Formats: sequence, structure tokens, C-alpha cells
Amino acid sequence: MVYITRIERFNAAHKLWVDDWSEEKNLAVFGKCSNKNWHGHNYHLHVTVKGRPDPVTGFIIDVKALSKIIQHEVTDHLDHSNLNLDVEFIPKGMQPTTENLVILIWDRLEKALESYPCQLHAIKLWETETIYAEYRGEK
Amino acid sequence: MVYITRIERFNAAHKLWVDDWSEEKNLAVFGKCSNKNWHGHNYHLHVTVKGRPDPVTGFIIDVKALSKIIQHEVTDHLDHSNLNLDVEFIPKGMQPTTENLVILIWDRLEKALESYPCQLHAIKLWETETIYAEYRGEK
Amino acid sequence: MVYITRIERFNAAHKLWVDDWSEEKNLAVFGKCSNKNWHGHNYHLHVTVKGRPDPVTGFIIDVKALSKIIQHEVTDHLDHSNLNLDVEFIPKGMQPTTENLVILIWDRLEKALESYPCQLHAIKLWETETIYAEYRGEK
Amino acid sequence: MVYITRIERFNAAHKLWVDDWSEEKNLAVFGKCSNKNWHGHNYHLHVTVKGRPDPVTGFIIDVKALSKIIQHEVTDHLDHSNLNLDVEFIPKGMQPTTENLVILIWDRLEKALESYPCQLHAIKLWETETIYAEYRGEK
Amino acid sequence: MVYITRIERFNAAHKLWVDDWSEEKNLAVFGKCSNKNWHGHNYHLHVTVKGRPDPVTGFIIDVKALSKIIQHEVTDHLDHSNLNLDVEFIPKGMQPTTENLVILIWDRLEKALESYPCQLHAIKLWETETIYAEYRGEK
Amino acid sequence: MVYITRIERFNAAHKLWVDDWSEEKNLAVFGKCSNKNWHGHNYHLHVTVKGRPDPVTGFIIDVKALSKIIQHEVTDHLDHSNLNLDVEFIPKGMQPTTENLVILIWDRLEKALESYPCQLHAIKLWETETIYAEYRGEK
Repeated sequence: MVYITRIERFNAAHKLWVDDWSEEKNLAVFGKCSNKNWHGHNYHLHVTVKGRPDPVTGFIIDVKALSKIIQHEVTDHLDHSNLNLDVEFIPKGMQPTTENLVILIWDRLEKALESYPCQLHAIKLWETETIYAEYRGEK
Repeated sequence: MVYITRIERFNAAHKLWVDDWSEEKNLAVFGKCSNKNWHGHNYHLHVTVKGRPDPVTGFIIDVKALSKIIQHEVTDHLDHSNLNLDVEFIPKGMQPTTENLVILIWDRLEKALESYPCQLHAIKLWETETIYAEYRGEK
Repeated sequence: MVYITRIERFNAAHKLWVDDWSEEKNLAVFGKCSNKNWHGHNYHLHVTVKGRPDPVTGFIIDVKALSKIIQHEVTDHLDHSNLNLDVEFIPKGMQPTTENLVILIWDRLEKALESYPCQLHAIKLWETETIYAEYRGEK
Repeated sequence: MVYITRIERFNAAHKLWVDDWSEEKNLAVFGKCSNKNWHGHNYHLHVTVKGRPDPVTGFIIDVKALSKIIQHEVTDHLDHSNLNLDVEFIPKGMQPTTENLVILIWDRLEKALESYPCQLHAIKLWETETIYAEYRGEK
Repeated sequence: MVYITRIERFNAAHKLWVDDWSEEKNLAVFGKCSNKNWHGHNYHLHVTVKGRPDPVTGFIIDVKALSKIIQHEVTDHLDHSNLNLDVEFIPKGMQPTTENLVILIWDRLEKALESYPCQLHAIKLWETETIYAEYRGEK
Repeated sequence: MVYITRIERFNAAHKLWVDDWSEEKNLAVFGKCSNKNWHGHNYHLHVTVKGRPDPVTGFIIDVKALSKIIQHEVTDHLDHSNLNLDVEFIPKGMQPTTENLVILIWDRLEKALESYPCQLHAIKLWETETIYAEYRGEK
């Protein structure tokens, strides 16, 4: 069982904001991340799948194919987007934190990889150089 | 003459958009960067000053003092901001490109460093891992 | 179950040295790391906690709060310190190797996080660009 | 139980090519990686072993010794080599993909570490900045 | 006058070898780089142009356009190539060292940028993490 | 005229401290860097030489030779050292700041490269991820 990881990048705007809360409470909980005019990040997304290398090609999955799936399912939707407003697979009102994003990305890629002879193993998302979240499908 | 550089970071939202142009023209010129709902970046700012090391302290400038000046003059204003809407020293209607930002940052820091025995030498700003702009005060 | 990681940095001096051994034996076992006048490193500390994102905030833990806990419990003690002499939570005579440090850091952070609705998952410490140690609480 | 990782680097040429296939089929499956005149990469190899820190030295294994083992068993053979032609421990006809390489490297290092009081835990190999494979000995 | 830099990457094989020399002399001068079966690298190419930001767009040059020029003139030719055999703009017999490559890349890009309102300023090429060459058109 | 850069690394301890000053004044000027028990860093040293590529070898200087000169003249003396106590070419009482170090390193390498057909161009020294100094021989 071998693990192979592909890294893709996207740049996006977001804010952390609960509509039911006052501006003061949003500021108290989310700090500068609650700026109503948004801020943004360069995100790095690591997608890891596992499987056995094919005896002829040496591939678990063609990494170029994996790259295209990630782009089609995830980064084409997220790149140069506003994570609160523009992305149909992020439910309205859900905070676009890295913790929530890795679960949403997992769900899309797990479905997209169903017909491939490999399994999704982990989604890791770097928001800045000092923060990243990871999800491995554990309920 | 020795050069010393301090790196600071900020995260911000922006878009590239000319009000006098149609949405189509904005899209044609600026591509995805014209998304009206914004996108964003993790910026890395390199500030370089030059001078002669003090014979006692070995400092051109105390780097902690330089860091505070950069924060006070630049990154406190830009971090978690919207570069088109929130920053008083970015003129309304000026595109917040890295090329324009390095000139604006230079002007603020040159003034702030006037009373120090060192000279501002260069402002370098990374917008993504593959794009950076630099300004050295050349007219 | 999602994992979130915060990275903090500190700079410190140390040496590897067993008092009961001769200088020759220390040199034979620890090489240049036994220099009696010390050497030092820029350390990068990755702290990973796991939990379920809060349905309202999208947080497992507020990363800014996690950052403050790490600073208060760990990096305020280690930054610009001598790991053999200055740090009260490193037992005298214990070698300040990355392997030992990750266990000591785990013990402090596990206790400090007791009242939070998340669990400490891993401590990873980079000593140089080519060496890092990790501890996950396994006895 | 603590994990310690050492990183080594090597530069090598390779191509992905199945002799039994036509040039067209090789191109269709492997794309540019099938260029018959080869291409190459700067590889980064992470070797992780696990064990308990020695109570006197604080070492799981002397990292300098681990480095020498990796060089002797792996990187001395792979550095500045052609992975398809020059390396006796890569079977002829096996594609030198990162997925296959991590298994071959595991097998050599597991044997070389047999007499040490630590266990091999993981082999991670970066081929480019956006692709890496990992193997942990799972059959 | 502002400088803007775009970074592109390519992976290639090469060897350093003088046909008129014996194998021994090639080995003596070029070391492992003379391996007749080739080796390879992940190259990072920094292309810097200078000019004045356009008052409306804030661009010196549209970075996406610059990226396409670099790809068309340089990296499409070099990526997944053998630098000694496959690249028509590298003269036969010229050693494909980073020092020679930066001059050849400069000549192609200077011509390609002639019709743009900016000037080529520097070509920097990283061959490994510890070696890079730079050329600024100085004769 | 082409520039070629080689990067070497060393790990060292130091403190910033003026003997003629009180502990209070040292703390006021140098902050945590004045800890009398030392602290330390992983330093990255970039050495740039300029010249014309040799028409046969394509070299300005054999980078492996340059690497050996840097090790012999600089990093063998600085690696795993105490910069205040152990290094004969750092004058007693001179603060081992990055600003002072780049001048001292320049002087040693300029002399060592006298017999080579290339010129020393720049010494750049990274002390941490956010601070570096550069010297180009300008008086």
C-alpha cells in the first residue's frame, strides 16, 4: 500500500462572520478575520490517495489525471473566488475555515475517485505558512 | 555599505477592476483577477535598508525597530484588509497591483526612516509563490 | 475528526554532553554537537490538535488561542534560551535532543489543553532543514 | 515511541517507458515523461525511524549514522544516475516512478537497519514540488 | 522604474561532457555530472522585467502574458527535455550549465519582448536548492 | 558577465553583548539577544561570484571547487561554533551580527578567490527566515 500526493494551489477571499451575531461579537470571536470587506489567502491543497502501484505503469493513479480531477472538482471552483459568496458546494452560512473546507473537499473528491482503483486517504489544506488542517474521512 | 532586510507578512483581499470599463473589458484585461466578489493573497514583504554597521552594536538599524516601523506604517494597515476599500494610503481608483503597492510602501517607509542613520534601499513584495515586484526608488 | 496544526518558531542554543563522560567520549558520540561553547538552531514547532469543527464557528480550536497557549507554555520559555541551562521544564542532565524535546513539549501542552474540546494529536519539531522529530503520545 | 526523520537529496534522470508498447502508446500513457532522451528531477528523500530515546544520549538513532546508512544504501547509488539504466537495485523493466522507488528504498533500508534498536517507519520521496509518494511497509 | 518577476519551472536531463576529451578527463573536470547516462534537475526560472506601471491597469506587463511568452519561448522547449540533445536553441557542443543557459534564455526573451513597453532586466535560474546563476545582459 | 551563487549552511550560537555596558543596558539595546547563556541560529550563506563562462566547460568557476573554498575558509570555522568565543577571524569584542559577519566573510573569500578567473560579487547571510544581510564590497 503506497500513498501518492498531489499539490494544487488556489487564491481566494473570505471572512469569518456569523449573521446572527452583532459586529462586536463577530470581532470578539473572529478578530481581524471578521473584517466585513474580506481578506484572502494563497491556499496550498495536498490530496493523498493510496493503492498498489500498477505492475506495468508503476502508477497508483496517473498524477496528471489526479491533477485534472482536483482542478475540475475543487480548484476551478475556488481559485480567485470569494469562499463565502461564489462557491456552490460551500453551504450558505457555513464558515469557510480550513477545518470545514477539508471536509467539503474530501466529500467531492471521494465521489469523483469512486471509479478509480485507488482510495482517497487525506486532504491537507495550508491557509498560511503557519496554519493547516487535515481530514482523513474519520467520522 | 551593508544591506539588511526584514521580512513581514500580511493577508489581504483585492480585485483588479477599472470602474470606467464594462464587465467584459475588465474580464478581458484582468481575467480571474476581476472577480467582483474579490480574491486574496498571503503577501510577503521584504524591506531592505543600507548603511554602515555601528562600531559598537554591529547594527545598521535595530531589526526589531525596523520591524515595528514596517508594522506601524504598512502591515497594520494592510493585514486582513481589502486593498481596494480599506487602506487610506492607496488612492481610490488605483489598481492594487504588486507594482503599484511597492511604490506606495516605499513612499511611506522612506519618510518614516528619515531620522534613522540608514537609507531605504529596496521594497520587494511577493504576491504568490511565482510573482513578485521590486522598487528601489528609481524615478 | 479533523486535525489542525499551528506552527511556531524559536531560536536557541544547546550542546549534547554527558557530564560523566570524558571530553573524548563526548566528542566520539556527539561529534560537533558536543562543542563545550554551544551551538544553536532555528527551531520550527508544529502542534496538531484534533476534534470536530464547531457547527457555528467552524473552529476545532481558535488558532489564535492555540498560538497563545503554545507561546505561554513552550516558546516563551525556549526562544533565545540555552536549552541546557535556562529552561525549568527540561530536567538537568537530560540531553536537549529533538527526540526528548517533543516529549517534554507534549506533556506541557496536553495539560494546558485539558479544558479545551479538542485533543492534542502530534508534536513535530524541526531542528534543521534536514532533521525533525515527532511524538504522538504513544507510550 | 518517538519518530525521527532525516532528509537526503539526489538528482537523477529517468523516463517512463514500456518496451512492449509502441511509441504512440507510451506517449498516450506517460505523456512528456516518455521522452526517449530522458528528463530528470531533484529528489528529496525523507526517512523516518521510530523508537524510544536512549536515556543517556537522547537518541533514537544517531542521525549522522542514519545519514551515512541512507547515503551508503540509497543516495550514493541514485545521485547523478539514470534510474532506468544505472541502478542495480531497480529491476530492469520496472518503471522508476516515485511509487515504485519508495518500496525499493524501504526494502534496502529495512535490512540495513536490522541491527539497530529502532524500526523503519516511513519512506517519503518528493519528485517535484507538487508530487510525493510515501510507503510505510504496509503489504 | 519597477521590477516585476515571474517564476516558471521545468524538469530536464543533461550531462556535462566534452567530446574531445577522454572519459577520464571528463570525470576529472565534471565529476558525477559527466555520467554518460545523464542525470537531471527540477529547474526554477525567474524572469525579471522593468518598466513603469501603466496608470490605468497598474501593470508593467500583464504577468499572465509574460508567463505565456516564457512558456512559448523557453519552458515548452526545455520541460521534460534532454538539454544536450533535444533543444534547438542550445548549440551542439555547448555545455548546458546554468551559466550558459541564462545567456541563451536572455537572448530569446529579449527578442520576444521587443514589442512590449518594458525591458528585460534579469534571468535567474536555480538548478538545485544550493546553486543558481543570473544574467542581466552585461557584455 | 554572469553571476553564479552557491549556498552553504552552518549552525552556531551567539549573543549580542557589550562588555562595557551594564546588564540592564545590554538588555535594553539587544533585548532577548543579550541572554548571557547564548542562543543560536541555522544560518544560510549565499556566495555570488561573477565572470564569463569558460567556452569549453561552461563554468565561471567549478561550483564544487567554490563549495570547498567556502567550507575551508568560512563554514568549517563557523559550523557548530560559538561566534563570540570560537572563531579566530571574528575580532574579540566585535558583535557577531549578520551585518558584521558578511563583511568578515567577504574579506576571507575575496582573498581566497584571488587566483581564480572570477570576482567575488556578493555575500548574503540569512540568520532567520525573516532577516538577512548582504555585502558587495562597497566601502
